[in-house]
Amino acid sequence: MTGTEQDPNPDLNFDYTRQERLGFPEIIFGESNSADQLQRIVHQCRDHVHSVLLSLCQPEKAETLKEGHYDPVARTWIWAPEPPAPISGRVAVISGGTADAPVVGEAVNTLRFLGIDAEAMQDIGVAAIHRFLKRLPELAAFDVIICVAGFEGALSSVAAGQCPQPVIGVPTSVGYGVAEGGRAALHAMLGSCANGLMVMNVDNGVGAALAARRILGVKEP
Amino acid sequence: MTGTEQDPNPDLNFDYTRQERLGFPEIIFGESNSADQLQRIVHQCRDHVHSVLLSLCQPEKAETLKEGHYDPVARTWIWAPEPPAPISGRVAVISGGTADAPVVGEAVNTLRFLGIDAEAMQDIGVAAIHRFLKRLPELAAFDVIICVAGFEGALSSVAAGQCPQPVIGVPTSVGYGVAEGGRAALHAMLGSCANGLMVMNVDNGVGAALAARRILGVKEP
Amino acid sequence: MTGTEQDPNPDLNFDYTRQERLGFPEIIFGESNSADQLQRIVHQCRDHVHSVLLSLCQPEKAETLKEGHYDPVARTWIWAPEPPAPISGRVAVISGGTADAPVVGEAVNTLRFLGIDAEAMQDIGVAAIHRFLKRLPELAAFDVIICVAGFEGALSSVAAGQCPQPVIGVPTSVGYGVAEGGRAALHAMLGSCANGLMVMNVDNGVGAALAARRILGVKEP
Amino acid sequence: MTGTEQDPNPDLNFDYTRQERLGFPEIIFGESNSADQLQRIVHQCRDHVHSVLLSLCQPEKAETLKEGHYDPVARTWIWAPEPPAPISGRVAVISGGTADAPVVGEAVNTLRFLGIDAEAMQDIGVAAIHRFLKRLPELAAFDVIICVAGFEGALSSVAAGQCPQPVIGVPTSVGYGVAEGGRAALHAMLGSCANGLMVMNVDNGVGAALAARRILGVKEP
Amino acid sequence: MTGTEQDPNPDLNFDYTRQERLGFPEIIFGESNSADQLQRIVHQCRDHVHSVLLSLCQPEKAETLKEGHYDPVARTWIWAPEPPAPISGRVAVISGGTADAPVVGEAVNTLRFLGIDAEAMQDIGVAAIHRFLKRLPELAAFDVIICVAGFEGALSSVAAGQCPQPVIGVPTSVGYGVAEGGRAALHAMLGSCANGLMVMNVDNGVGAALAARRILGVKEP
Amino acid sequence: MTGTEQDPNPDLNFDYTRQERLGFPEIIFGESNSADQLQRIVHQCRDHVHSVLLSLCQPEKAETLKEGHYDPVARTWIWAPEPPAPISGRVAVISGGTADAPVVGEAVNTLRFLGIDAEAMQDIGVAAIHRFLKRLPELAAFDVIICVAGFEGALSSVAAGQCPQPVIGVPTSVGYGVAEGGRAALHAMLGSCANGLMVMNVDNGVGAALAARRILGVKEP
Amino acid sequence: MTGTEQDPNPDLNFDYTRQERLGFPEIIFGESNSADQLQRIVHQCRDHVHSVLLSLCQPEKAETLKEGHYDPVARTWIWAPEPPAPISGRVAVISGGTADAPVVGEAVNTLRFLGIDAEAMQDIGVAAIHRFLKRLPELAAFDVIICVAGFEGALSSVAAGQCPQPVIGVPTSVGYGVAEGGRAALHAMLGSCANGLMVMNVDNGVGAALAARRILGVKEP
Amino acid sequence: MTGTEQDPNPDLNFDYTRQERLGFPEIIFGESNSADQLQRIVHQCRDHVHSVLLSLCQPEKAETLKEGHYDPVARTWIWAPEPPAPISGRVAVISGGTADAPVVGEAVNTLRFLGIDAEAMQDIGVAAIHRFLKRLPELAAFDVIICVAGFEGALSSVAAGQCPQPVIGVPTSVGYGVAEGGRAALHAMLGSCANGLMVMNVDNGVGAALAARRILGVKEP
Repeated sequence: MTGTEQDPNPDLNFDYTRQERLGFPEIIFGESNSADQLQRIVHQCRDHVHSVLLSLCQPEKAETLKEGHYDPVARTWIWAPEPPAPISGRVAVISGGTADAPVVGEAVNTLRFLGIDAEAMQDIGVAAIHRFLKRLPELAAFDVIICVAGFEGALSSVAAGQCPQPVIGVPTSVGYGVAEGGRAALHAMLGSCANGLMVMNVDNGVGAALAARRILGVKEP
Repeated sequence: MTGTEQDPNPDLNFDYTRQERLGFPEIIFGESNSADQLQRIVHQCRDHVHSVLLSLCQPEKAETLKEGHYDPVARTWIWAPEPPAPISGRVAVISGGTADAPVVGEAVNTLRFLGIDAEAMQDIGVAAIHRFLKRLPELAAFDVIICVAGFEGALSSVAAGQCPQPVIGVPTSVGYGVAEGGRAALHAMLGSCANGLMVMNVDNGVGAALAARRILGVKEP
Repeated sequence: MTGTEQDPNPDLNFDYTRQERLGFPEIIFGESNSADQLQRIVHQCRDHVHSVLLSLCQPEKAETLKEGHYDPVARTWIWAPEPPAPISGRVAVISGGTADAPVVGEAVNTLRFLGIDAEAMQDIGVAAIHRFLKRLPELAAFDVIICVAGFEGALSSVAAGQCPQPVIGVPTSVGYGVAEGGRAALHAMLGSCANGLMVMNVDNGVGAALAARRILGVKEP
Repeated sequence: MTGTEQDPNPDLNFDYTRQERLGFPEIIFGESNSADQLQRIVHQCRDHVHSVLLSLCQPEKAETLKEGHYDPVARTWIWAPEPPAPISGRVAVISGGTADAPVVGEAVNTLRFLGIDAEAMQDIGVAAIHRFLKRLPELAAFDVIICVAGFEGALSSVAAGQCPQPVIGVPTSVGYGVAEGGRAALHAMLGSCANGLMVMNVDNGVGAALAARRILGVKEP
Repeated sequence: MTGTEQDPNPDLNFDYTRQERLGFPEIIFGESNSADQLQRIVHQCRDHVHSVLLSLCQPEKAETLKEGHYDPVARTWIWAPEPPAPISGRVAVISGGTADAPVVGEAVNTLRFLGIDAEAMQDIGVAAIHRFLKRLPELAAFDVIICVAGFEGALSSVAAGQCPQPVIGVPTSVGYGVAEGGRAALHAMLGSCANGLMVMNVDNGVGAALAARRILGVKEP
Repeated sequence: MTGTEQDPNPDLNFDYTRQERLGFPEIIFGESNSADQLQRIVHQCRDHVHSVLLSLCQPEKAETLKEGHYDPVARTWIWAPEPPAPISGRVAVISGGTADAPVVGEAVNTLRFLGIDAEAMQDIGVAAIHRFLKRLPELAAFDVIICVAGFEGALSSVAAGQCPQPVIGVPTSVGYGVAEGGRAALHAMLGSCANGLMVMNVDNGVGAALAARRILGVKEP
Repeated sequence: MTGTEQDPNPDLNFDYTRQERLGFPEIIFGESNSADQLQRIVHQCRDHVHSVLLSLCQPEKAETLKEGHYDPVARTWIWAPEPPAPISGRVAVISGGTADAPVVGEAVNTLRFLGIDAEAMQDIGVAAIHRFLKRLPELAAFDVIICVAGFEGALSSVAAGQCPQPVIGVPTSVGYGVAEGGRAALHAMLGSCANGLMVMNVDNGVGAALAARRILGVKEP
Repeated sequence: MTGTEQDPNPDLNFDYTRQERLGFPEIIFGESNSADQLQRIVHQCRDHVHSVLLSLCQPEKAETLKEGHYDPVARTWIWAPEPPAPISGRVAVISGGTADAPVVGEAVNTLRFLGIDAEAMQDIGVAAIHRFLKRLPELAAFDVIICVAGFEGALSSVAAGQCPQPVIGVPTSVGYGVAEGGRAALHAMLGSCANGLMVMNVDNGVGAALAARRILGVKEP
């Protein structure tokens, strides 16, 4: 795509060199693009035999796209011509409650799309902290921990206080009142007393997965 | 005090019947009253042989008041003609970090001013959660737990998840950035996934003590 | 439930020991869990003969659940294999206006689910304060007062100024403009001049009921 | 003042016709004007034999001004060549607590500067509502009620619910945590369930006095 | 209504004495009450031959109510057994733009429901200030001015700067971006440089009408 | 239109002299005006043979209007009896991502409605900055640059740092979490380290176009 | 400056090519740089015979700098080896009140530093709108209007509604309560109903001047 | 330290096992601890021959501490009995402007305290993006990039768009108006269109360094 006048899609400038530059492809934000735009983007990617992941893609838009795989919980739509090259390293995606499942799904799907071995441990929040503490031995086997939590997001602080790995907090928009929209969890993670906790925007499972991808790249020779 | 024109302090309407009505006396907010107002209030209380506690009282104002006891960390000034009648029940005041000491002090001093047996357990926040977990057996002996915490205030969620007693969260203004002024901790406590956590305004150690007083009253015959 | 790979619901970690640990069971947040998740949670609880309450459960989800009782005003769905063991003590749930009825209902239903004697006194807000003042003698017979109010939530301040019991304020999302979403009432309750008023998150009737449960536990031998 | 180049104060455009146009003179906001600007403004007013009131005037600036009267509590500085023409009608300025005294003073001083009979009734907030209720008969004799209150400002709702007169709420910046800067009181007054309560900006005693002046003008033949 | 157990509507405490106490009846907030609640309230009022106005009443609820008059723009539903007693004085309701029409309608309908002579002058905002300036002579004949404006609400400042009457600003939720929900207009009115401008909550046309009612009462002998 | 009682549309005061006064006609905010109001406004404009543009016009309203042109992406509806007089100067509308297309469309359509030569360069945001940098030579040929961007709006800072022309930033409501509603982009543009960047309200493509119109007027003899 | 290790100031990367690239030099933000940093920056500029302007420079820092000119009201410090090349076009800087003088001064000083003819018209806000209206004929002679206003900033809307030129709004931090820090004025300007008003960050007089510089560049051949 | 009654510092619970558990020691927040508390903490650490770093330590407190090293720009105070064990890997700390120097210093000092090779590249923000672009080859040699930026923090987006390494954004409180306190930069970083950018709380240089420490641990065998 050149962006010249003759281009059939002069309004699209897909970043085909991102994989080479950063180690992962451009991800498309499904929520704010129209079905027409998504169709044209996917069409272009197929023409380039270039894998593509749409995030926060509404079901009615996903239905207009062909051949890819849609996960209605995680709201991801993926088309990949072949399996991704595997990346060395393992990522655990832990969550506070069952209602965080969509963001857990988005993170796990993105990690696997990138060729990363990912495992979810859900519903182990601090209202019953033994659920988390008993998983600590398992967690030791992972290189990166993504912690997904809504309400007050306290699981992140506890996890970062107990685990030496990089911990990436993802606040979710699960909650109501002051927790509505994920702000309480976001601020709790940013203001955490646990040192070195890194934070993503609310519900940003894709971003956490890409951050993990960057971190695993540090291991590469 | 009648509030009539002849009253020397027509601008003061101290609530002398609060002890009888609610079980505890009026507390004076030192921070926003002038030294002159505080002096006149204290003078009136002495005339009525009525105990008085000034909260958030700046040192320079405390110096202008006579005979009472000032705690420069907790910023409370107390004058009591005699020891308070003891209230049945014990209250633990736990805190996340050393910087929460002023609010812990305010709560403890107020509880003791009210005749309540209070004990502080400080600096046991979730960045190193074993510090809290090893105190659990001790905590079982208390009737009410006041949990004072700044930054993201996660200690409250863990405490309310482990302890069956009434837990009163007091966010503190310790922190910076999004935690500045105590908002992150306040919202985390209000939005806590731990059920039944009750919350006070930021830095409101006095309020937590009075809430505990109300709760201990439920035990009274 | 062990959370191992063989578990049919590895994404669910229901806290079955909460009743024993805290004196009340885990409550499920209906609003953000999918119908599928709620069905599996309820199924598990039935298998364990364990009572369950879903809060903020939308009608369309409630319809997919069997045998339980749904209250469309309070949006609670309850399944209990047998009546709860009665808890000693009485709780009054007072409200400012008729529009607060859903949160009053949630609190009352939760209290009764827990085995607590609860009574509602609605629509007695401060725009006509005599409505509240004439109920004061009745209120004296209760151990705990839950005060549900929207708009500016001033009923909480008046109640906490007149009643010696523990008063738990629950701001509601009733209102518009600056009161939209319950923030005006929440801040008014937190910043109340009436001492010792404890506050819950906006619309958190369940939380207030559980806080009352904790308080009544102080009375227990 | 013409604003032409030859004008010694081309940066000042005092509104000398406001008295004639609106019934009250321009009030100068002392806080953000420099001492030099205030001196020149006062000098001009004296040259025009035009009364002037500076609001929120810091003591160190007031000291640089001559012959006027400075009230250090209310922070008003007034110079009037002769007493104002009396305005028919009476205004009560009620307040929640002693710490609201500066704003009460600003309102009372401004009312008297305008020629209006004003009386203060202070420290009668809702934490002990009988203090307000017993003043109701007295309040019936006033044409306008200005209600000054900090923290959660609930006195305004109660007053507007009991009194038929115009009630003007003035939130004050007295409070801390969520009440800091007067926002909790402001929102509570705006969102009040009591109908017809009118609201001014935080600490705006001058504005409330001028609003009362406008209202009393309705009575004028 | 007594509120006793035998009461068919123990959850309703309509304030029947408000007319006598304040000079106007209770107004019902239609938006947050259910259709069932509104029907019972209206039924009660009819039984008492007591006029009733429901504000912000959604069309689908209005359809379930009989015999009253519904204004779909203003969203008011009114039932009055007879015309109101006329109140002396006139009120102008001015607005910035055509999109403010619903709030103008609510204010005008409420004023007329109260027996007050009201007139609307719409779409005369400051983007073309001559539209307002040419109406100044007409405005001089009114006792009170209600100024309804969205976006940045600047019409209120100009009106309060030019007109000596009481000016009541009503910000509307018309606008987008920073003006969304009416906050920009609300803050502009509260922070107005024009002295003595009184402010209501966003979209609160009913409140402005009742405030005007209180003001006109000052004129009454 | 005179606004007198005989006027069929006394609630409409279309500003017919704006073209003469400011060089561009009044634009109608479609979103908050009812279909009925829009029809009457359009009818009036046709009667006056006066071009009209409705912004943020929902499709269902546009369908009720006749003969004009509706752009469903940009949500503009335009009726023009003849082509506009051309204005000297060229405007580039650049954007960060494909999801900003509606606001780009609104700006471009408005510019062309005003007679200005406008060109869009979309999807060239800073996540792959070479997309922007390679367009720099092209951009040099434009007189004004409108920069439309959501999320964090960083393209504006880069553009204003590289281009000497007037740069007008338009944040869009594209994004989620902290970027929801366009606030992150708005604040980033206002707080930009790049000097002289001018900012419009969120999604305000019309405003940016009119600002550009004003700027091109400076060139006119 | 190369930024290599041998560089005496490797932490400084003054943008010497900005004049050539954008038509104006880099401006230094005095407030957050230390006196030591400012001294080294100024020293470097002198070595390069490159004019420099420090904005928001505190007096105590200005005193440590030699030979330049400090304006204590505007808080600008300027060193220029020779007068700037004159730019064609005139800019008016109008303001709402006397307290806006520092920002007016910053804008005027920056414009003159850039070689632009600038004139101030102060204290002509909308509380007495005739002050502004009578200056309209004068304003017609300017190419660009910078409108500086605090409180609710309504002067911008009126000016943009009356004047065809580019109007750049600069909200100031003059005000208290909801207007504190300039947010009310900022939002009012962004949400203005007057079309095409461009907005700068609060107190950003430098930015407005540079925006005007960019606009005048459009006129250049 | 055991926390028993006999403990001379029962209010301190230094986490001596953090080094072993997480790979780095507890960091002390200097700003909110009193000088007395800091002295006792440092004394304890010396007794344990345990290195200690105090962050955001005010100069007057640092003066009361002996033998350590204080950096007045970065506000860190460090006491280390011996050099730290070196950690494999290199970290670059880049910044937008000279005013970000304190946070750059805090990050660099903490990294070196932890035994990590750190290098600063300052004042290379996007207002002149070539300053950053020409450093890209150098940056390729680092394992982790910490990006410190105030105002709108756009450097983070550009860096994360060009560099494949983990990028940790640290917003700084440099700025005014909407950027005051670092919120604009914080939200811009969280909402960044550049994928996988991880974010810390405002001014949290220590946190960024510890996050980098966690990431470098992934490389360890």
